[in-house]
This record gives sequence, structure tokens and C-alpha cells, in this order.
Amino acid sequence: MPCIALLTDFGTRDPYLAVMKGVIVSRCSVPLFDLTHDIEPFDVFEAAWFLRTAVPWWPPGTIFVAVVDPGVGTERKLLACERAGRLFLAPDNGLLTFVCGDSAQAVSVENESLFLPDGSTTFHGRDRLAPVAAALANGVTLDQLGEPVREIVRLDYAPPVYAPHVRGTIVSVDRFGNLITDVEADRIGFDELLLMAKDVTIDRHFKNYALGGSDPFLIIGSTGCVEISVGGGSAADVLHLRRGDRVEIRRRS
Amino acid sequence: MPCIALLTDFGTRDPYLAVMKGVIVSRCSVPLFDLTHDIEPFDVFEAAWFLRTAVPWWPPGTIFVAVVDPGVGTERKLLACERAGRLFLAPDNGLLTFVCGDSAQAVSVENESLFLPDGSTTFHGRDRLAPVAAALANGVTLDQLGEPVREIVRLDYAPPVYAPHVRGTIVSVDRFGNLITDVEADRIGFDELLLMAKDVTIDRHFKNYALGGSDPFLIIGSTGCVEISVGGGSAADVLHLRRGDRVEIRRRS
Amino acid sequence: MPCIALLTDFGTRDPYLAVMKGVIVSRCSVPLFDLTHDIEPFDVFEAAWFLRTAVPWWPPGTIFVAVVDPGVGTERKLLACERAGRLFLAPDNGLLTFVCGDSAQAVSVENESLFLPDGSTTFHGRDRLAPVAAALANGVTLDQLGEPVREIVRLDYAPPVYAPHVRGTIVSVDRFGNLITDVEADRIGFDELLLMAKDVTIDRHFKNYALGGSDPFLIIGSTGCVEISVGGGSAADVLHLRRGDRVEIRRRS
Repeated sequence: MPCIALLTDFGTRDPYLAVMKGVIVSRCSVPLFDLTHDIEPFDVFEAAWFLRTAVPWWPPGTIFVAVVDPGVGTERKLLACERAGRLFLAPDNGLLTFVCGDSAQAVSVENESLFLPDGSTTFHGRDRLAPVAAALANGVTLDQLGEPVREIVRLDYAPPVYAPHVRGTIVSVDRFGNLITDVEADRIGFDELLLMAKDVTIDRHFKNYALGGSDPFLIIGSTGCVEISVGGGSAADVLHLRRGDRVEIRRRS
Repeated sequence: MPCIALLTDFGTRDPYLAVMKGVIVSRCSVPLFDLTHDIEPFDVFEAAWFLRTAVPWWPPGTIFVAVVDPGVGTERKLLACERAGRLFLAPDNGLLTFVCGDSAQAVSVENESLFLPDGSTTFHGRDRLAPVAAALANGVTLDQLGEPVREIVRLDYAPPVYAPHVRGTIVSVDRFGNLITDVEADRIGFDELLLMAKDVTIDRHFKNYALGGSDPFLIIGSTGCVEISVGGGSAADVLHLRRGDRVEIRRRS
Repeated sequence: MPCIALLTDFGTRDPYLAVMKGVIVSRCSVPLFDLTHDIEPFDVFEAAWFLRTAVPWWPPGTIFVAVVDPGVGTERKLLACERAGRLFLAPDNGLLTFVCGDSAQAVSVENESLFLPDGSTTFHGRDRLAPVAAALANGVTLDQLGEPVREIVRLDYAPPVYAPHVRGTIVSVDRFGNLITDVEADRIGFDELLLMAKDVTIDRHFKNYALGGSDPFLIIGSTGCVEISVGGGSAADVLHLRRGDRVEIRRRS
């Protein structure tokens, strides 16, 4: 059964989200869910990483509509693609980097008969993506939206390397101040390692947040990646680290 | 098919919204949507303008419940009205100024048999509007709610004038810092104009946000009205303009 | 008809909530509601009091899932219990203090066949509570979840006393700055009393917020308890009072 899941950088204070929902609700009756609308304005990486984390937990049939679109109204394409039974609609600016991958069978959303009439150049989320999402929910298929795209825009992201040394990146800082890296714990010998980032070295490891106490420690977060945490506080604040900082992980000598 | 759409100034941290939803869910099973709950506390104008922007995109059958109600428990009425198949419930304090208009067939919501028993003087959203919204969703009609109201309270708002000079007002500042006026672009020769507000004059025009660069520029926003924007920044911060400031638009000489 | 209502301290910026919703939506199709996700991180009391206020307004059949879980992955239990036809899932850390009460027929959620396979030690909301909530929505019963719990963890909370003097506590400060006590107004002679908290004494009383003006006054809030309010401002800021502060209420002499 289809449903629609929305991700934007609109916040909830302005009417943009309510407008998009109105367009969708006017045109289909599938359940409508919010993923988040608190993406930092224009922060395509944050949104792309959010999708990477959240999408795998949603069922086939979910239609993801992602609108972080600083280039709205320019020549940038709108994309639709399908992966594992899930559908994605987003501007072609890297948003789908981690969820549609290399082999994406993406199409360019160009079928104007599905758009709102007299649309704007400033709000394609409302004028194009919302009605197209409703159309997909009502049974329209990707090939009715437009022509295949040879190559989608991808973010300039360097994945972690695991040999000879493990090097990765802090890809997210969560509400609790946890510093989340992209280093997968099951690819390293987690318990015998130490992590270095800038002038910080951490070699304490815990299996859950409550045991770590107020000194920084390493933990395997819920995505399976190595995190830096501080009990009852913000590791980001304590350690002055942030998204984009590189980390190196070595065997304790 | 009916649905209920909620707008409040409750925020989401306190239980007020969850309480209202519980009352509604206990009494009907139509889909329930959030428009926003981030209206600045008591800011009736912000809420009224939000409704003006969002409502036209929702389908007939939508029951809008708007609760920004600094006068709760006083003699102010609760209103219900219908426009174009959409229903509205709100305190009579100007909230419906832009969506129910002059010819509103409004009634005063006074049928106590529809209210929660033993209601409070401090939370009519819960005790009156929520159960009445559910009743409307279940088929109750406006004339069962109460007597017609001769005149609803309207906000003291001066619409833009288009002759001899175009004068309007900044009615909203969005999350991105865009300054949104009430001047409709299709009523003026947008491309040949300059805008003045306080000591600021702007004569650059662009069709989308990405092209404008970091100097202030004019753009036709998604509501069709003239906006002032700054690429990658907040026009409100850069220009020290805010809601309520007046703008004048003239032909470039 | 069952529905699921979620309360967390996750905020909405991070993907945690979207992940939990994906797990639920993948496994059942009952309506899904948000109570709040803005509980201050780890603030079990705030969440417990929120539930106390909100739960009574929801219908039997509601499955409440509450995740404020600083002890995730430790030996703390996960609880399920039922009261008045409503079901609750939460870590056993005091969250259910006010909604499951003394006579709670709680069980320990231990049936691993209902959990996600290969679960983490850091996100039981996703790996255990979300799929168990879906299972309950699909008809699984409490006795299939695990063994009865003799005693659930309860918060160290001193209820108000009404004799010889009325003493209570400020249990919440809402978005509007109202200071909400736990003293039930219908157990005292509200109109003839004065309230003292720290060096503050207040003896003005009003039936609604609009009448009180800008000096602090007492009001019976929507929960039926005594509140301290300031018209158009924050009583908390004006009076330098906060959650946890004790109040004493005496007859005006």
C-alpha cells in the first residue's frame, strides 16, 4: 500500500509545508508522514544523510518527497527514481546520493500534464513534486513522468577507508551532541581501537550510553557506525568537533 | 471526504496540542493534519496570514481549526463558517479575516451539547473547538452550532494600493529571511520597477533565488507577491526590515 | 479501533523518529500520531507529566509509545501495561509513574520474536518498542510480551498536601511562561487564597488569561490545577520561578 513521506528544509513556521500537504491531500488519499522539516536551510548533505539513515526502515511502496532546493527554478532537473520498491522525488542536486546509488534508474520529471497549472519558478515542491507524488500514489508509473537520466548529481563525499588505517568523517551531530562517524563498527575490531580527531584521542568504549560517564567515549550507534559520546552532555560541545571533521582509528599499541 | 487541519500557537513541547488531538481522535476517524503549531504566541495576524496562504490549496471538506486565542474565556465568540466547501472554526478575534471575507456566513458556536462537559474557561480549543470539529466531521451542520453572526471581527489591515503609486506592506518574513510583501506581481510591471522600504532601494529582479547572488533582489514569490531576497542569507537581517514595514514600488526612471 | 501515539525526546531534526515511524508503518496500518518529540533530552519527569496530562483525553485502544531512555541497553526493563483500555510501552525508568499507577498490571517486554533481528544496544525504541507497538496494533496481547513485573520504577515525586496548609510544586512551565502547579483548585477555596513561592506572594485571581493584566495572578488552568500567569508575558521570567519550586497556599487573612 502506498504512502507518502516528506522531508524538507521548510521548518514548520511558514506555510510552505502546509501548502504542499494541501496539494497532496487534494489529489490522493494515501497516508502522509513527516520525516523531518528541520533540515538546515539549503543543507543538501544533511538531508541526503538523513535519507540514508531513515529510508531503509520504510516499506516498499513509500513515496519519498525530498525538497531541499536552493536551485529551484534554474535548469536543475527534478528526479524520480525507484529502489527496492521505494520511490523518490527530489531536485537533482545530490539529495539522492546515498539512496539511489550508482545504478539508479532515474527519470527527469517533465510531464507537465501532472504539474499544477500556472506554476511558479520559486516553489516546485508545491507545483510539481506534490502533484506528481499524488499521481504516483494513484498509480502513475515512472516512465510516464519523463525520460531516463544518464547521470544524477552526486555529492562530493569521500567514503571511509579501512586500510591501511581506518579514516572516516563525522557526518552528523545529533540532538544529544553525539558525534556520528561513517566508520562501520563491524568492519573494524571495535573494542581494541582508539579514535583520533584533531587534537582529541579517545580510547574508552561502551556498549550503551549510560555506562560511559562524563568523559568522552566511543560507542556503536544505532546505524552501526562509530560514535563519540559524553554521558549527560554534548560530545560536540566538550570536544569542539563538528560535522565534516575527519577521524582516524588505530589499534591501541 | 472530510479531514481536519489544525493551526495553533501552542508549540509542540506542551501537552495542549496532544490533548486536542486526543479529543478529536476519540470522537471521529477522519484524517488529522497539522498546518502549524509554531505561530508566535498570541500573534493573530501571523496566523490569519498563514491561513490566507495555505487554505486555498486544501480540498473542499477540510475542517480548519485555528486556535490563537488570547481572549479565551472572555465574551469573545467562537466562530464557525463555510467558504467554498471548506469549514472554519476559530475564536472571533480576526483569525478568519482573510479566509472568510466580507460575505462570511458565520455562526456563533454555542451549542453546548456538542462541547465537553464541565469545560474550562482557559482551553476552549480542547473543550469546544475540538469536539465541534469532530461533530462537523461526523455530519453536524453549521446551523446546528448556533445563530448567525452579523459581523465577524476583522484585523486592521490596509491592503496594498496600486495607483497612483504602488504601496504595500511586508506581511511575512519566512525561515529563509525572505521579506514577503502583499503586492501582487501580476498587477504591476514587475521587471521595470524598483522597490523602496525605509532607506533601502532595490532594483535588481530575478526569476529564481539561485540567480540573485548575495545582494538584495526582488523576486515573485510562490504566493504571486513581490518578495525581497538575498542569496544564501537573510534579507531581513541584511536590510533590517521586518513585518509591518511599508514598501513603495515605482517605475525605474 | 487501535491507534499509536508517540512521545520521545528525539526532536525532529535527527532521523531517529523517522526511523521508528518507518518500522511501525512497515508492520501495521493503524493511524499514527505524535504527542510530542520535544521533551528535553533525558527529562523523564517532563515526559511523565506530559503523559499524565495528555493520556486521559485519548480513546481506549490507543497504544502509547514513550521513549525517553537514558538507560537504553542497560539492565533496565522495557514495560508494557494496560489501563482503562489504553496500552503503554516505555522503558522502566519512571515514565509511567502517573499513568500506570500503583495497581499497574505491567509486563516486562522480553519476547524477542517480536523484536527486530540483530538489534542494537543503543536504540530500543526502534528495535523493540516500535515492532512491539505494531504487534499490539495487530492483536498481540500483553501476556504474549513477557512476565508480569512486580514493581515498576516510580519517580520520586511528592504529591501536594492539602492540610493543614496547602503545599504543592510547580510541575511545568509552558510555552507561554505559565507556572503550572500540581495543586487541584477544586480541593481548595480558590477565590480566597494567596500563593507564596520563594519570596513571591500573589493574591490576584482571574478566570481567564485576558483579564489578568501584566501583574502576576492566579488562575485555574486547563488541567484544573492552580497556575501563576502574567498577561502578555512569561510568569516564569517575571517571577524567576521554575519547575520544582515549591508553593504554599494560604487563606487571605
